[in-house]
Parts: sequence; structure tokens; C-alpha cells
Amino acid sequence: MMLIVKKFGGSSVATPEKIKAVADRVLRETSPEDKVVIVVSAMGDTTDELMNLANAISANRNTREMDMLLATGEQISIALLAMAFQAKGRDAISLTGPQAGIKTSDAHTKASILDICPARVEAELAKGRVVVVAGFQGIAHTNDITTLGRGGSDTTAVAIAGALNADVCEIFTDVDGVYSADPRVVPSARRMKEITYNEMLEMARLGAVVMQPRSVEMGKRYQVPIHVRSTFSSASGTIIREEYTMEEKEFIIRGVAQDNNVVKIAVLGVPDKPGIAYKVFSALAADHIAVDMIVQSIRNSDKKINDIVFTIAKPDLDQVKEIMAKIGQEIGVIGLEFDEDVAKVSAVGAGMFGNPGIAAEMFGALGDAGINIEVISTSEISISCLVRKDQAKDAVTAIHNRFFKQR
Amino acid sequence: MMLIVKKFGGSSVATPEKIKAVADRVLRETSPEDKVVIVVSAMGDTTDELMNLANAISANRNTREMDMLLATGEQISIALLAMAFQAKGRDAISLTGPQAGIKTSDAHTKASILDICPARVEAELAKGRVVVVAGFQGIAHTNDITTLGRGGSDTTAVAIAGALNADVCEIFTDVDGVYSADPRVVPSARRMKEITYNEMLEMARLGAVVMQPRSVEMGKRYQVPIHVRSTFSSASGTIIREEYTMEEKEFIIRGVAQDNNVVKIAVLGVPDKPGIAYKVFSALAADHIAVDMIVQSIRNSDKKINDIVFTIAKPDLDQVKEIMAKIGQEIGVIGLEFDEDVAKVSAVGAGMFGNPGIAAEMFGALGDAGINIEVISTSEISISCLVRKDQAKDAVTAIHNRFFKQR
Repeated sequence: MMLIVKKFGGSSVATPEKIKAVADRVLRETSPEDKVVIVVSAMGDTTDELMNLANAISANRNTREMDMLLATGEQISIALLAMAFQAKGRDAISLTGPQAGIKTSDAHTKASILDICPARVEAELAKGRVVVVAGFQGIAHTNDITTLGRGGSDTTAVAIAGALNADVCEIFTDVDGVYSADPRVVPSARRMKEITYNEMLEMARLGAVVMQPRSVEMGKRYQVPIHVRSTFSSASGTIIREEYTMEEKEFIIRGVAQDNNVVKIAVLGVPDKPGIAYKVFSALAADHIAVDMIVQSIRNSDKKINDIVFTIAKPDLDQVKEIMAKIGQEIGVIGLEFDEDVAKVSAVGAGMFGNPGIAAEMFGALGDAGINIEVISTSEISISCLVRKDQAKDAVTAIHNRFFKQR
Repeated sequence: MMLIVKKFGGSSVATPEKIKAVADRVLRETSPEDKVVIVVSAMGDTTDELMNLANAISANRNTREMDMLLATGEQISIALLAMAFQAKGRDAISLTGPQAGIKTSDAHTKASILDICPARVEAELAKGRVVVVAGFQGIAHTNDITTLGRGGSDTTAVAIAGALNADVCEIFTDVDGVYSADPRVVPSARRMKEITYNEMLEMARLGAVVMQPRSVEMGKRYQVPIHVRSTFSSASGTIIREEYTMEEKEFIIRGVAQDNNVVKIAVLGVPDKPGIAYKVFSALAADHIAVDMIVQSIRNSDKKINDIVFTIAKPDLDQVKEIMAKIGQEIGVIGLEFDEDVAKVSAVGAGMFGNPGIAAEMFGALGDAGINIEVISTSEISISCLVRKDQAKDAVTAIHNRFFKQR
């Protein structure tokens, strides 16, 4: 007997036919003794259609009412999927997020899960029922319906799996696992059988988009293995867990990621005196701007002026321009440069800690490919280089080839 | 300051434009100090679309899952209507049936309201908000979502009005009030300014379709005045209440109703001995068949055999045919006749009790019009006659003209 949580996204339940196919698949892949929880998103375009209705009412929508509206999308798909199980002779019941005990903050449209009270889910499982839970939604202390924002259904699935102490949480998606690099960029990229939570989080942070970080964090917190696998095939995908169970340590580098969503900002001619960097970065922090790579270099040691270079995420650019214009005047700088033609390429692997040769290998691979490195940053399990955007693809390929050929 | 509950049906909220128009109308017809609760149904065809989805999954649907599915219809319209109020600068909040404290039985798809716990509604009203409540739905002791079946949104509105001790519950509908007869049948029919709960219930029972009896019963229980009025105009309609407030007693007969949905059944040649009628009607009662008019007549006193004639509602006919075939054999009858070409015409008025001339007037009106009366039945506040269906319209006109000209 296994306790399994499976999550299917909106495209997997877009039509009644697809909903029936999901029920078929679940019945085929589980045995009648298994305890099975299915988490689903809203059908296909439902969320967009609901957004269109709201847009037709008002441009400025109250987030509580948006949640009231959007939560209906998942409620429709859980009812239909439960009916599909019943039609195939398997007892099933649908539960909304509130009914499933998903307690959240009251930050409407982007609530975070605070607690799971799985009593009802457990009671229904004990009756031998497949329990179909609405992803993406929960209930706040106000008794109001909330939604979890981006990647919410994955988070629901992993959180329920954690609360139930499930054997595995399977996330069905349109890719068949986690790859060592984006296969569209590097055709020779390999699908990893296993990857650690930390590696997956670092990959996501550095630009890989297979899984939202919050569901991986939830898996790490509850130590639930997350199986990322394809909706379109029955093959195994990638299991995200704390440690590799297999001796799959042949690759120190587990993945190469690329992030085009960065802007390089150069603050030129900053006075070389204490407190200047603090002034810049505390102003940015006050406005919740996340700063990534930072380098300070000497511009002119005689005149005691430096340059500061850092990167931010592209959506913050307009806000940062405003802040920096003000700060630049205050501290007296020579100039400000905003460069959007950059990309960040990164190598991730838990095993690189204590392997000092890895960084050198990576710089060598880029050098051999004639790619200039503008900024470098490292963490315990990753190394990132800022390069010209038009060279990013070549950079990823060069790094990938260097590490994944040396088996 | 008034406490007003207003209910708008699905056609009133069928599009975002119509939803905005409802908000406009409510703001125009109430003052900012009024406490206002709006009950709405699902938008236009939403319920049908949800039914189609369910049909595409399975022909045999679990009623709990149907309720889970159908309840989303009202949840969409309440969120959009709350947004519409907010967009016009009036604070508003939407509440699902469960949030509004509508406690029901667990008879899914046809639940009855057991209790209303209006604490949340009252708290929101106290904040000066328009409270938009989902009609047609509630929550069972199982914590499951239920729906109330036919006429459910009206019932929700009247029940909430009762629990809040509202000044009035306004039901907006596609007719502009309660008429003394169906205006399509009798063009001279009058709109009544007021009518009693009992009269309205009797009218509904006898074939008038303006209001479902259950919401009128709810109004009677809580003594909430129900104002039936037009969606398309701001004119007053008909107020249903316990007693007339005005001296509007000029018409003893308050309405003439017609019901084509009846079948006359004749059981011919029944042995004239005790217990036979009991056998017939207890068999029908055991299968929950409602029997309406009953007449027993002597067929042949020498042979001691009688005829029994009664009427039932047309949807029960197939079931009744089966039951009667069996019973007929058991008790030994000469024959069974099922006559669908009949209609029941009725005159309703609380004042007819203690006015013995009313029945005679009605029979006279029918006789003068050359209409034969096949069966007669009476209650404290109504008289009904079974006539040929093709004469029903003339019968209604004849009765209406007799009573509504004698002012």
C-alpha cells in the first residue's frame, strides 16, 4: 500500500475527454489498496476566461473578490474529475482547498500556506476513496477563500503530500523531468534521474523553470520526494529529494542554467569612502529590490573613486532607475549605465563544494569558446557568470559540454 | 435606514454589462445609510454549461459532486457583482452560501434550509458594505456544499431577509407582479398591489408560476414582506404579506389559476366494500404520488360497484399506470381510464371563507359559458373545477370576468 499524491495541471484537464483520461491513467498506475490524492488546476483556459469577465467589470479589482472568482476554476475541475472516477467504478470525492484544510495567510491572490489540517482528507482516504483536491486555493483565518498565486497547485500538492506523510508527490507536467540544461538550447542535455532539493532550488533561482521554488521548498521542509514526470508518457522522470539514493555522483555539475531576465547596472565614479555601498544597497533593499551579483572595482586610485556593478531582475528596472537617479545625485557619481544585453549562465551541483577545480574548469570552458566573463558570483552549490546575451547560448553549451563529457 | 434584501435572477446578471446595470439600479434605489443585501443566481446560461460538462463526463452523476460543480455558477456572479459595486465607489463584499451561514439538509441538489446563522452578513453590513450573497446554495452538517433545487435563489433571499428581520425582500423577475389571472390568457387581468401568503401559496399550488411555494412559505414563517417586481422597470409590483395593509378588499376572489399539468384517472367498477379506497390511495402514497381531486360515485347500486375518479400531476403518470394496473387486478375492477385532455381552473381568495355564494357564482359563470364541470374540489381559500383542456382558457376568462367586474 502506497500513499501517493498526484498533481495534474490545467492542460491535462482542459476538456471532459482529458479529465476522463486522467482518471484512466490514475486507475492504471495505482492499485485499489493505494491511498490516492489527486490535486488539479482549473481546466485549460478557465482562469483566463474568468479574468476576462473581471476585466469587463473593472480594471481595478479587489484581490479578495478575484480569489472568490478564480477559485471557481479548480472547483469545477475537481467535481468533474471525481465524477469521472465514479463513472469508472472507483469511489471518489472532491474537496475544495478550504475543505482539504489548506490554511493560508490572507494575502489574497498570493497567499502562502501556513498549515494543513488533513483530517477530512484522511477520513475520506480511510473510506477507500480517491480524494480530488482543488489546487491553488485555501482559506484564511477570516474564513475567506484565498489563492496561492504562481505555481500554487504544485505547492498545494507537495504540502498535502507532506502533511499526509505521502510516499511520493508526482507532478505531471509538459516536460518529462529535470534536464542538465534546457534541451532546446543544448540538444545533448541529459535527464537527471535524481536531483536534490537544494540543487533544484538553485537551478530555479538561476533561471530554470521546471518547478517553482516554493513547491521545492515545501518538499524540502516536509522531506517529500517530488517526482517530476510527463503527462504524455508513463516513463519515469526526475525525483527531487534530500540526497541521491543511487550512486549517481558521476556528474559533479548537475545542471547548467541560463537567465536572460537580468540587467547589469554600473554606478561609475563612486567616492571611495566608507558607507557608500551601504547607501546604495540599503536604498534598493528599502524598496524590496533584490540585487544579485555585485562587484566593486577601483576606477582611479589617485582620485579615490570606484565603480560599482550589480545586477537586478528586469521587471524592477524602472523602479531601480528612479532610485539610482536620486542616490547618484546624493553621493555624487560620474554616471549610471543600464545594460539589458546581458545574461547569466550558471553551473549548479551540490558536489562542487570542496571541489576547487570546478570554477576554473568553467572559466576555461568559456575562455576556450571566446566568451568574455563580465561578472562572477558563487554560492556553495553554484557558480554564475554574466556574459553578453548573444553569447549566452554558446556559453551554456560550452559549460555543459565540458562537464558532461568528463564522465 | 432600511434593511433591504434584493434578489436578481440569472437573466439579470447574464453579462458583465447587466451586472453593472444591477449595481447601478441598487445604488439608485437605496440610500447610502440603508443596509443592503443582494442575492444573485448564476449568470444566464452558466448552469446549463456546467450541466453539459457533467453530461460529457457521465450520465449518472453523484449529487454531491453536482452541487460542488453547480455552486460555482453563483460564486462567479457574486464576485463580479461585488467588483461592480466597488468600481462604482460603494464598498461591497461577496459571500458564498456557506459563508453567509445558510445551513441546509444534506439532500444534495434539493437541500432544504434548516437554519441561517447571519453573523457574518450582519458584521459586513455593520461595516457599511453591500453584501452580495450566492443564492441557491448552502452548507450541510457534513461541511459539504449543497444546492437548494428549483426556486432556490428566491428561498435564499427570503430566508436571509427573515433571519435579518429585513423590512422587505424584493424579488426581481420578468413579470411585474402577481396578476388576478395569467395576462396572456385574460388580457383584462389586474395586477394586485397586495396578496396574502396563503393566497399566493394556493395560487402556486393551483398552477400560477410567479413564485415557488417554498419561498412564500419561508416568507410566511418569518413574516417577511415579499415584493415581487419587474427587472425592467422601477414601478412597484405586488407585495406578499400576512394581511392586506390597505382596504383592498374589493375583490373577494384574488386570482384565477389554471393548471394543464393534470391527468384524470377513472377506476371503473370498483367493488363497493370497505377498505377499497384505502387500498388504492395508500398504494399511491407509498410511492409518494400526490393525489389531488377525488370523487367516488355509484356505478351500479344493484351490483354494488362504484367508480373512483382522481387527478394526479402529469409527470407521475407512467408510475401511476404501473401501480394502478397492479392494484386494479388485486381488487378486481372493470377498467382503468387515463385522460390527459383535462385542465384544472381555480379561484383563490382568503375572503371566500364564510361567503357561501362564491362557489355558486363560479359554477354559474362556467355554466353560462357552456362549460361542463367534471370534478370539483374546494379548500378554505379556493375552489377548483376540472374541465376539458380545450375549454380551460374560456373557463378562466368566464370566472375572471364574473368576479372582477362586480366591483
